[in-house]
Amino acid sequence: MSVTLTPHAKASSHKVYVDGPGGIRVPMRQIHLTDGSDIRVYDTSGLHTDPGVAIDVRTGLPRLREPWIAQRGDTLALDRSTSEYRRMREADPGLEAIRFEHGARPRRAKPGANVTQMHYARRGDITPEMEFIALREGVAPQFVRDEVARGRAIIPANVNHPESEPMIIGRGFLVKINANIGNSAISSSIEEEVEKMTWATRWGADTVMDLSTGKNIHETREWILRNAPVPIGTVPIYQALEKVRGKVEELDWEIYRDTLIEQAEQGVDYFTIHAGVLLRYVPMTAKRVTGIVSRGGSILAQWCLLHHQENFTYTHFEEICEIMKAYDVSFSLGDGLRPGSGADANDEAQFAELETLGELTKVAWAHDVQVMIEGPGHVRMHQIAENMARQLELCHEAPFYTLGPLVTDIAPGYDHITSAIGAAMIGWHGTAMLCYVTPKEHLGLPDKKDVKDGVIAYKIAAHAADLAKGHPRAHEWDDVLSKARFEFRWEDQFELSLDPQTAREFHDETLPAQGAKVAHFCSMCGPHFCSMRISQDVRDYAAALEVEAGMRAKAEEFKQAGGELYVPAKR
Amino acid sequence: MSVTLTPHAKASSHKVYVDGPGGIRVPMRQIHLTDGSDIRVYDTSGLHTDPGVAIDVRTGLPRLREPWIAQRGDTLALDRSTSEYRRMREADPGLEAIRFEHGARPRRAKPGANVTQMHYARRGDITPEMEFIALREGVAPQFVRDEVARGRAIIPANVNHPESEPMIIGRGFLVKINANIGNSAISSSIEEEVEKMTWATRWGADTVMDLSTGKNIHETREWILRNAPVPIGTVPIYQALEKVRGKVEELDWEIYRDTLIEQAEQGVDYFTIHAGVLLRYVPMTAKRVTGIVSRGGSILAQWCLLHHQENFTYTHFEEICEIMKAYDVSFSLGDGLRPGSGADANDEAQFAELETLGELTKVAWAHDVQVMIEGPGHVRMHQIAENMARQLELCHEAPFYTLGPLVTDIAPGYDHITSAIGAAMIGWHGTAMLCYVTPKEHLGLPDKKDVKDGVIAYKIAAHAADLAKGHPRAHEWDDVLSKARFEFRWEDQFELSLDPQTAREFHDETLPAQGAKVAHFCSMCGPHFCSMRISQDVRDYAAALEVEAGMRAKAEEFKQAGGELYVPAKR
Repeated sequence: MSVTLTPHAKASSHKVYVDGPGGIRVPMRQIHLTDGSDIRVYDTSGLHTDPGVAIDVRTGLPRLREPWIAQRGDTLALDRSTSEYRRMREADPGLEAIRFEHGARPRRAKPGANVTQMHYARRGDITPEMEFIALREGVAPQFVRDEVARGRAIIPANVNHPESEPMIIGRGFLVKINANIGNSAISSSIEEEVEKMTWATRWGADTVMDLSTGKNIHETREWILRNAPVPIGTVPIYQALEKVRGKVEELDWEIYRDTLIEQAEQGVDYFTIHAGVLLRYVPMTAKRVTGIVSRGGSILAQWCLLHHQENFTYTHFEEICEIMKAYDVSFSLGDGLRPGSGADANDEAQFAELETLGELTKVAWAHDVQVMIEGPGHVRMHQIAENMARQLELCHEAPFYTLGPLVTDIAPGYDHITSAIGAAMIGWHGTAMLCYVTPKEHLGLPDKKDVKDGVIAYKIAAHAADLAKGHPRAHEWDDVLSKARFEFRWEDQFELSLDPQTAREFHDETLPAQGAKVAHFCSMCGPHFCSMRISQDVRDYAAALEVEAGMRAKAEEFKQAGGELYVPAKR
Repeated sequence: MSVTLTPHAKASSHKVYVDGPGGIRVPMRQIHLTDGSDIRVYDTSGLHTDPGVAIDVRTGLPRLREPWIAQRGDTLALDRSTSEYRRMREADPGLEAIRFEHGARPRRAKPGANVTQMHYARRGDITPEMEFIALREGVAPQFVRDEVARGRAIIPANVNHPESEPMIIGRGFLVKINANIGNSAISSSIEEEVEKMTWATRWGADTVMDLSTGKNIHETREWILRNAPVPIGTVPIYQALEKVRGKVEELDWEIYRDTLIEQAEQGVDYFTIHAGVLLRYVPMTAKRVTGIVSRGGSILAQWCLLHHQENFTYTHFEEICEIMKAYDVSFSLGDGLRPGSGADANDEAQFAELETLGELTKVAWAHDVQVMIEGPGHVRMHQIAENMARQLELCHEAPFYTLGPLVTDIAPGYDHITSAIGAAMIGWHGTAMLCYVTPKEHLGLPDKKDVKDGVIAYKIAAHAADLAKGHPRAHEWDDVLSKARFEFRWEDQFELSLDPQTAREFHDETLPAQGAKVAHFCSMCGPHFCSMRISQDVRDYAAALEVEAGMRAKAEEFKQAGGELYVPAKR
């Protein structure tokens, strides 16, 4: 197993840690500017980008949260897994070569205990996770606790994923983004997936979903989790279906339940569960242009039809809550009936499911289990606000987590752009996390370039939303970059970009000479025409005007004071 | 002079012409789908994409509008140019090698005549240009005329650019996009610029602005115009400044006036004129983060400061109107004080200038000269609607033409995306034309790839705006593509994309086999997991439910009718 971590292109920045109470250290990226100033920005890349720490992917990241979890004293380490499937995989000598060797024993809540961050918050506790987040977001820890207690924000933090750095998803906080990775029946390996995960977080992914549907899902996920500095989400029905060799009719609650436990014991931080796909909603999709496009949604819809029974994730929802609270896995209530085209947006099926997700939110909250709600998909711009308003109303302000949405369907190959438009808008309106879409959406599996393109497009959308929401910290970055641009500090402009390497390369295509990096012009206007340089003259002029006005005022004072010299001015 | 026109990647489509009154033929691109249906889409690429017509760039495009202009009988062909500069260029034997040889004699209005489309519209005429546009947009010719008469839409159509295919810019019509090209002091040649122009229109640019600031501006523009199927815009102050070797202090009205005439005689369809940059507004920009960032704006601001005089394009505005109406050049009233960063958006300077542009609009309209208003630039999402509302109010609903706007400043290298977000939103709110931004913005000069990336991002934004505005023709394209996607018609999905070649390549990276083009699955889910396929089962189920319900209803009727056979149903 070898993973190559591509060095970050951010030469003039380094990782710093902000100290908090109880030895908490929050990582930030500090960018050094040529005018001697610095700016600190949010950093999702974990210890992988700390040159002072040697990370061996075979042993995984240090377990940052382990002492915090231990100190709470409400979990116990299991002697053996309670997942039958995991025990089977562990007993298989043929898997030796791909098995992660240094995993810890799985933990779960002691009998009767509830180990969710929501439970602690409702009890009034401020956990180290909340302290960490407060520093990371620049808000009071009490605010973090209260938002989690109220269900308006979640902290995905499985006790079995102590490697992750705490983060929060809620509309009172910075808008987050998720990157999907995962092997499929067609292509990609464990190495590639671990590499994609670290790559995605390096460019700014706040969480990563492992949507693997191919071989060795269990082992792939273990490698990802042990090296992931961010929360990991999954869609457990995918693996459950693999276990019955793709035969939907053979799925049942027992197989699904064992899959939930298997994944919870590994440390998955949130599960997409399509419990709102009810039998009676399925026919509502029949006349759509694009029917059901959610994989999980369609699997469950087909199961319902084949058995003519209600969705088992709905009928067993309380039992699922019992599992979730024993590990602190958060719900990501899946939108199995989300629209797959603009034509199908905001229809009866979509909103019927959303209403059920709202009911299930209350059930989960009764167990102190954290919940976010998944949303579309494909929505034209004029229907975005309605989506958000309905979600807030029907789901009692639980955080919204949308896929895009794409605002038009005519640009396969560019759906990172069609969807970044919708994502920025819905983020502004209140969506807490945006699931990225890569240029390969609808066409193929994303490679590393696609992952990066998707993450950058979504960092743009999320940051644009933060600016529009008036997040107090958001505009500083823009202002510092704009000032650098105006002052021809080219290197600073590159370093402050979301992607310094590309910014520098684009500049150097036309003006490669090192001297151009300090030139007071660029290739667009050339040396004669620079509007930015001319603006300096404007400032001089305005300053002169002010001086002139000041002198006139002085002269006026002088006259009014009787024209005597050395009389001090009134003010 | 040799220009290579890259073949279009749209194999399964061809150019068709829709016949209209008086022999008018409106080009469309017709895409042939594998289910036997067709869809026609708007086509900006001109005869360059008609394989039945051989275009020699040395002779230029056929003069489509020449007979219409002649028939109106209100222009005359000049024996010699009335521009001193042009006569000088024509007399220079050193320019032989780069001169376009087959230009027509310049035309202008007969003494006292006004040859603007607005003038004809206000007189009640429906011109062939309006008929052409009505067919192209799918609206009544009377509506076209009335919107132009009212000033809410413009038809940029210089009598000296008869090669252009009529198009309209107004918020009651499809949202248009502009692509900027142009050589600079640093790089690029005539060949490259002509190639970029045809390339931009091939991907969907509705107009092209030639922003050349380098050598041989006059000759470069001639080649572009003679081969351009779309209206061409310029910023005449750029060339005027070249004529005084970049010395702003030496600019004056005479040089500027000769430049306007030179360009109007060549056929430029709209001029960006920064007549709203008034001396008293200049100090308002002094405390901005990024001062003045419009090249034209800063040139005029500096001129005002150096001479301590009012902007000569403002003081000579009525004379400029006289020139405009003699050729039908439209005003694009420049936003010389537009914000160059989110921090500077919607400030005093920007709105002061906008108010002056509104006053100038009324002056131009008094001459029946067509006007559109340029807008920002950099605006965060929550300030976009205000921008549009103010423009409509202050400028009496003259069409708005914005550059982006970028919704965040932190992504140099990706500003086609930061700005496509703002462009889509402001387009939805009513902006009539969106000036594209390429990935090279702020960093360097766009190459062909950048031009294409910028155009595609802006076609997305414009189309998303059309959808959100509810344009009756907009959703068909999306729906047809979505249906093809749902039915696994891969080839159709590719052909319907804004960029078929990229869509196909992306698909083929993972599934190159020809068989995969007809497979009922893709690389994302693999053969077992296809949600789209499962949806077919849902339809069968819903159909069965309906049949069942129908049979129950029949049975009920049968019972209610007394249970006798062969009694016809009531309804």
